[in-house]
Parts: sequence; C-alpha cells; structure tokens
Amino acid sequence: MEKKTDEVFNALFKLEEIRQILRDSLPTGLDNDEKEVWKSKLSELNEIVQKLDSESVTKPLKKIAGTIEIRNREENYINIQPIQAAGRLTLEGRKAIIAYGDGYSTCDACRKPFRLDKISKPPIGDFHTELAQFVNMDQARVVPGARRGFQAVAQTVVNKGDSVIVSSFAHYTEFLAVEGAGGQVREVPVDNNNLITADATATKIEEVIRETGKTPALVMMDHIDYQVANEHDVTDIAKVAHQYDIPFLYNGAYTVGVMPVDGKAIGADFVVGSGHKSMASPAPSGMLATTDEWAPKVLRTTQMVGDLTSRKFGVKEVEMLGCTLMGSNLIAMMASFPEVQKRTQNWDDEVKKSNYFIDALLTIDGSKVLSEYPRKHALSKVDTTGSFDIVAKTHKRKGFYFSDELSARGIVGEFAGATRTWKLSTYGLSWKKLRYLADAFVEIAEKYELPIKK
Amino acid sequence: MEKKTDEVFNALFKLEEIRQILRDSLPTGLDNDEKEVWKSKLSELNEIVQKLDSESVTKPLKKIAGTIEIRNREENYINIQPIQAAGRLTLEGRKAIIAYGDGYSTCDACRKPFRLDKISKPPIGDFHTELAQFVNMDQARVVPGARRGFQAVAQTVVNKGDSVIVSSFAHYTEFLAVEGAGGQVREVPVDNNNLITADATATKIEEVIRETGKTPALVMMDHIDYQVANEHDVTDIAKVAHQYDIPFLYNGAYTVGVMPVDGKAIGADFVVGSGHKSMASPAPSGMLATTDEWAPKVLRTTQMVGDLTSRKFGVKEVEMLGCTLMGSNLIAMMASFPEVQKRTQNWDDEVKKSNYFIDALLTIDGSKVLSEYPRKHALSKVDTTGSFDIVAKTHKRKGFYFSDELSARGIVGEFAGATRTWKLSTYGLSWKKLRYLADAFVEIAEKYELPIKK
Repeated sequence: MEKKTDEVFNALFKLEEIRQILRDSLPTGLDNDEKEVWKSKLSELNEIVQKLDSESVTKPLKKIAGTIEIRNREENYINIQPIQAAGRLTLEGRKAIIAYGDGYSTCDACRKPFRLDKISKPPIGDFHTELAQFVNMDQARVVPGARRGFQAVAQTVVNKGDSVIVSSFAHYTEFLAVEGAGGQVREVPVDNNNLITADATATKIEEVIRETGKTPALVMMDHIDYQVANEHDVTDIAKVAHQYDIPFLYNGAYTVGVMPVDGKAIGADFVVGSGHKSMASPAPSGMLATTDEWAPKVLRTTQMVGDLTSRKFGVKEVEMLGCTLMGSNLIAMMASFPEVQKRTQNWDDEVKKSNYFIDALLTIDGSKVLSEYPRKHALSKVDTTGSFDIVAKTHKRKGFYFSDELSARGIVGEFAGATRTWKLSTYGLSWKKLRYLADAFVEIAEKYELPIKK
Repeated sequence: MEKKTDEVFNALFKLEEIRQILRDSLPTGLDNDEKEVWKSKLSELNEIVQKLDSESVTKPLKKIAGTIEIRNREENYINIQPIQAAGRLTLEGRKAIIAYGDGYSTCDACRKPFRLDKISKPPIGDFHTELAQFVNMDQARVVPGARRGFQAVAQTVVNKGDSVIVSSFAHYTEFLAVEGAGGQVREVPVDNNNLITADATATKIEEVIRETGKTPALVMMDHIDYQVANEHDVTDIAKVAHQYDIPFLYNGAYTVGVMPVDGKAIGADFVVGSGHKSMASPAPSGMLATTDEWAPKVLRTTQMVGDLTSRKFGVKEVEMLGCTLMGSNLIAMMASFPEVQKRTQNWDDEVKKSNYFIDALLTIDGSKVLSEYPRKHALSKVDTTGSFDIVAKTHKRKGFYFSDELSARGIVGEFAGATRTWKLSTYGLSWKKLRYLADAFVEIAEKYELPIKK
C-alpha cells in the first residue's frame, strides 16, 4: 500500500472546512443553509476517508492559499536534516496547534496580574514551574527562540564595550546578541580534539583582562556546539567563570529537550533552550531559566513611568517585553512537554543510534567523522571526500547524484549536492528507520563500487 | 442539531493519530503491524465521522496531553474579546499550521545566503515583497510580535537618556521598548475629545527640547490606540516629527491587516503591525516595514568579527537576530494573507457593524460609549455604569450576572464580572452574528427591566 499522505491532509483540510461552518454559525446552531453545506462537506469527507482504506488515489492536493505546497517530509521520508530532527512536533503538540492556532488563544482567562506566565487556564503557570524544574533552575520563562534568551541576558549584563567570552564554535545568534548589546565577542580556542576546555577559557579571560583592563561581562558557552556537535566541559568552564565573578550562560539549544540538563549541577546562571530545535515545538519558541539571584536582574520589571499620566506597568518584564508566546507555540510546547521530559531519559539510546549510523558510514572506505568519536550526540559532521565525493567528481549530476540516490530511497535533509563535509542528525529515528538509513548508505556505496570494510 | 464541535476535534485528532502512523513508518510503506493499526484507527475515524451526521453524541473529548482543554470559543460562541477578533485564523491559516507545525519547517529549502526572507520555497521571499507593498513601504520583515518591531527600532535610534515621544494612550510594549533601549517616554496629552493632535505633539517636542536641550530620538504613535480605540491624526503628527528631523514610527497593531494602511502617504519611517492581533496569524507574529532610507539602519547587518576565528555572519541582521519566524507562524501569516488583504477593503462595513452594535447599546438607557462616536473602529470602550451595573449592585452574582446572561446566549469575551467600563470588538462578525449580539444586549436589559429608548 502506498502512503496515503495526501489523503490524510485532504481529510484534515476537509475537516477544517467543516469546522469553519461551526465558526460561521450562530451559537444557537446551524441554520438550514449551513446544514446543507455541512451535509455536502460531510459527504466529501466520507469519500476521502473511504480512499484511506483503498488502493485508489485522490486528485492531487491543492496548494494552501493557492501558493503553499503541503509539507510531507516527516510523513514520506526519513529526515536527517541537522537542525530539524528534535523540533518535530509530537502527536499531542500537533493537536495543540489545531486547537490553539488563533492569535491570542492563550489569553481567554487572563486575569490580574495580566502576565502570560501567571495564567492558570490553560495551565501555563504550572508549566513555567515545571520548566524551571526540568533544567533544575529557580525560574523560567518562554521566549521566541533561544536567540531571544541570549538577547535578554546580553542586554542585562553587557554594557557598551564589554567583552563576552564565547566559544570558537559559538552560534551566530550569540554574536548578534552581544553585538546588539554593544559588546564584543572574544573567542576561546578549541584544543586539538575540537573541545573548549576550562583552562583555555581561563587563559582567554586573563588575556581579555590584560588587554582591556576589564573583566568580561559574561561567559556564554554551548554545551553541544552546532559546528561539529562536540560536548564541551561546561561544568568546569562555569567554575572558571565564577572564579572571575563572571555570570555563566549555558547554551542548551542542542541539549535541553533531548538529554538531561541540570543547571545547578553545571553551575549555570542562565540556561537557554530552543523549543523548535530541541523541544518538539513550533518556531519561534524557546526558554530562558535562571537562578533566584539573577532573576531580579534579567527578569526585572519595568520602572518606566509616563511623565504625564504617571502610568506604570509594574508587573511587566522589560527583557521579555511583557508577554512572549501568547498562542499555539506555547500550548504546543506544553503539549509536547510530557513526551519531551520522557525522551531525555532515553538519551543513551539516541547516542547508541548515532554511533550505529556513524559506524556504518565508517565501513565505507575513505569516510570520516569530523565530530568527536565515539559520538556523544545525534548530530554529527561527516567527511565523505574520500568516499561519496570521488563519485561526484565524474558524475554528470556532480554531488547531486548523492541527493538523488538518497531521495530515491526516501531519505532527505542532507545538504543537497554536498558530498564533502556535511552534517546530519539521527535524532528520534526508530531503530527500524536507523537500520534502513545505515543500509541505504552502504547500498549507495556498493552501487558506485566504493570499497566497504568488512 | 447541536453543534458537533467536540466530534470535529475528535475527528481531527484521530486523523493526527493516523498521520503519526505515516510518520513512524519507513519511506517504503507501512509494515503489517502498522497496517493493522491503520485499519483500526480508520474504523475509529469512521465511527466519529458517522456521528457528525447524527444526533448521537460521542464521549467527552480527552484533554490534550492530559492537561490542556480544547479551545472552542470560536466554534461555539460569539467572541467579543477586544484583542482576539482580528487574530482569529482563516481557514487557509489553519491548514498552514497543520502542514507546517514542525519546528524549523520553513527551512527545507534554505540555500545561500541563508536568511528566512530569502527563501523561495515556500514563497517566503515573495511574501516579504508583498508585505512591504501591502503597507506601501520599501522593505518588510516578519517579527515575533509588534513589540519586537518597537524594540528593533528603539534599539536602533534611541540612545541612553534619549527621549521618545509617545501618546498618553501608548501601549505598554512601547514603554518597555524605550526602557530596554535606555530611553525615556514623554507622553503627548490627549485633547478634550481624547485625541492626540499634531499641535499637541509639536508642543511636547518643544517642551522636551527646552527641558533636556536635546531633540527626541523618535516619535512613536498608535494610529488607533488600545485604550478607547480612537483614530489619531498620524499623518499630521508624522509631518511634525519630520519638521524636527525625528523619525516616525507608525504603530499599526490595530490597523495593519484590518484597514488599508499607506505608510508613504502617512509619512512613516517605520510601520509596525501585529500578526496575532490584526493579521489572522498565530502568536507571536508581526511585521516591521521601513523605507530604503532607514533600512540600512534598522536592518543593518552584523559587523561583529570573531577575534580568533575571524568569523563573520555578514548577511544576518542584528535587530532581527538573524531569522525570526522559522515555522508555522510565518506560513500561517502567508496563508491568511490573501484574505487579510481582501478584508482591509471591507473596512467600511466593519465600521458600520461597530456602529450598529454601539447604537443598539445606546438605546439601553444610561449606557455610554467612551470611544469617539460615531465609531471609526471595531474596538470600542463602553460605560454601562448607568445601565447593566445598576443591576449588578443588588444581584447576588454581582457583575457576574452579566457574564452569565451573555454566556447563556453563547456570547463570550467580555471582561468577566465587569459592568462599568469595559471593551469589546465586533471585528469580523457577520451581520447575522452582529444582529444576534445587539439583540442579546437589549434582551438582557429588558429582562432586568432597564429602560430602552425607542
């Protein structure tokens, strides 16, 4: 049986048309015209549902609003795209956005003191408490993406001209957050193993103090970096930061939501996580957690007073700009959260799967892994210059032959055309998919007569 | 026939369960176990679909993730909540979030130069062009809420200690944006008609210059304010701002997406709109548009260079923090956009409906409208101290009797318990719903023997 993805979308969309009848009707019920439309839409729905159980295929799916194609890469393919894997919605997350898609949908029962994180129905307040506990910090807020967490912290602790210690593998959004606050990034070098060490961090801090006469304002460090996805020693780096009385921001974009994170044990003053990268949530979403010591600073409430009206909005937090995720993104985060909490407990298995795939790749002669090995994360950077790229050199489709071969096997998310160094993530793939994926790589190698180590 | 809202949700959710089978299966198709589950879920779906056409009722709907109740206020009620009306999703918008809910769903075909507004599939680049044209400005970006637009502009033009001219009715997020940038708000008084005039703005600018010795850095003005929803003379206010060489930010949170807005005709340097408030989009979403003159400033690209690696991320915009809405919020904005463009052309009818309702309310003796009258907007502030509040004084449920009466008639969104001054919006209600709403108010008044003017 072919996958009935288009038919499932067709049925979902038809149900949304049916739902629209409810939305257009009076609270008292459907009038006769509406009942007619209801019946006719229902019969269309029935027809689609019948096709879900037969070999026959429906007409091609119409584009949304006439221009937007349906996205079916999670239904029809194995998606190894490096940043998409852990942001895939859970089933409950998908239900949440269906129910809460409308603009200010979280605000039905907003009462005094009128702030998102205080709303109890739906249980947004409780979720904030759980979110803080999840990363073992004192307080948490949701933000529109991890970058908005970096921004909030940078604007709180970084003054014009201040230095901020970051990794040589730091994500560009850290650069931008520091730049926005008027600071200057100072990069800690990686060692021969592509790792940031506490010693190197201390040396860099000393260097900055010597050069500028001023202690850096912040140390911001990625637990797992985005470049090769190595695990850096954040706990010891945080210790070094504190020795210099510098606050420590833990960038958990690749960890919070996939592996256990204990902010207190790490010694983090700030923990930043990404909803759409690692918490099975729609973009933009994310979280910022902090300690009771730092909360009054980064979550400071407004002091601004209208000079004429004397208006004050005391409970609103300046860096949050008041409320943050007032709709479906937050509710989807909440709906995915039980599964997200659970899956962090299965991290070992995710690491095993990552290594299983890399081991299979390494049997293809000339293939290398540029990330630390054995792998400690599902994201990896590989180098196939010595294997798949050899074929690309003489193939008329160049590197795209490789994308063609993958997509013919239902695998997508590699960087199209890249056959030298590229990244992929195995996160969240079942063992069944994982084995299929590994086999596909070996199969492609065999097809092009690349030598396989046994 | 009772509204089958729970059944529609049940069917949607069952289809999401069916979709999950596709997601869990190999690209090659369903295995035998999966086919079994498929069949059994399909039969459950069929059962639900049959109930959509009968009088029988299903079991109560389960909560999402065990804790989140379904939201059905747009299906079962007339929602007059003051800020929710124009953020209600369109049918196409709802389809969009179903298809694009997963985290980085917009990034499948992200290619050089790796920025959200440059993506052509789905047509995100074209949408940015259309968005700029929509408000007749040169360039546009999407942002996570209007407040993030205020923030981007404030951080670009406001230095520490600078004054920013705002309305006495300015929204709190303008206060926060100015505070975050280190500035100070200076409020222009409203006149006897609760309107901000160009003259009053000029007087305030003069006052600030006299007091501080410095010209304000920005004039930020709400076209329609959130307090009473009066229309302020932004065109003449922009002229005044420009006479002093001050850039002008047009706050279109209550206009962009519901009425025609011509940024150039207004003389705006910045146009800010809200997706979840007025563009039928999920929260957080919004837009910032600007002129070719101001774009290099507010949309400046990063200049930060890694001191060790010399890394630069040249195409990324500092105030946007790189990409902004990388998921379903953007796609829903795009999907709703054709209908949003169209509906701004029907603004006169929306204003007519607003006045129809207010006129009906004013027939209830003692009722007043605190907004300018005749109304020029769908949002209004009313004062029922002289009518519905009289009943509340002796009713055992106090002001909640009024909420009870409204909700018994399927009307929600009033501020629960408030019978003195409160706000409502009639935006987007059909004439059928509007007449029902107006009749309901008169009916409640009659029930409690409040005098009606004929």
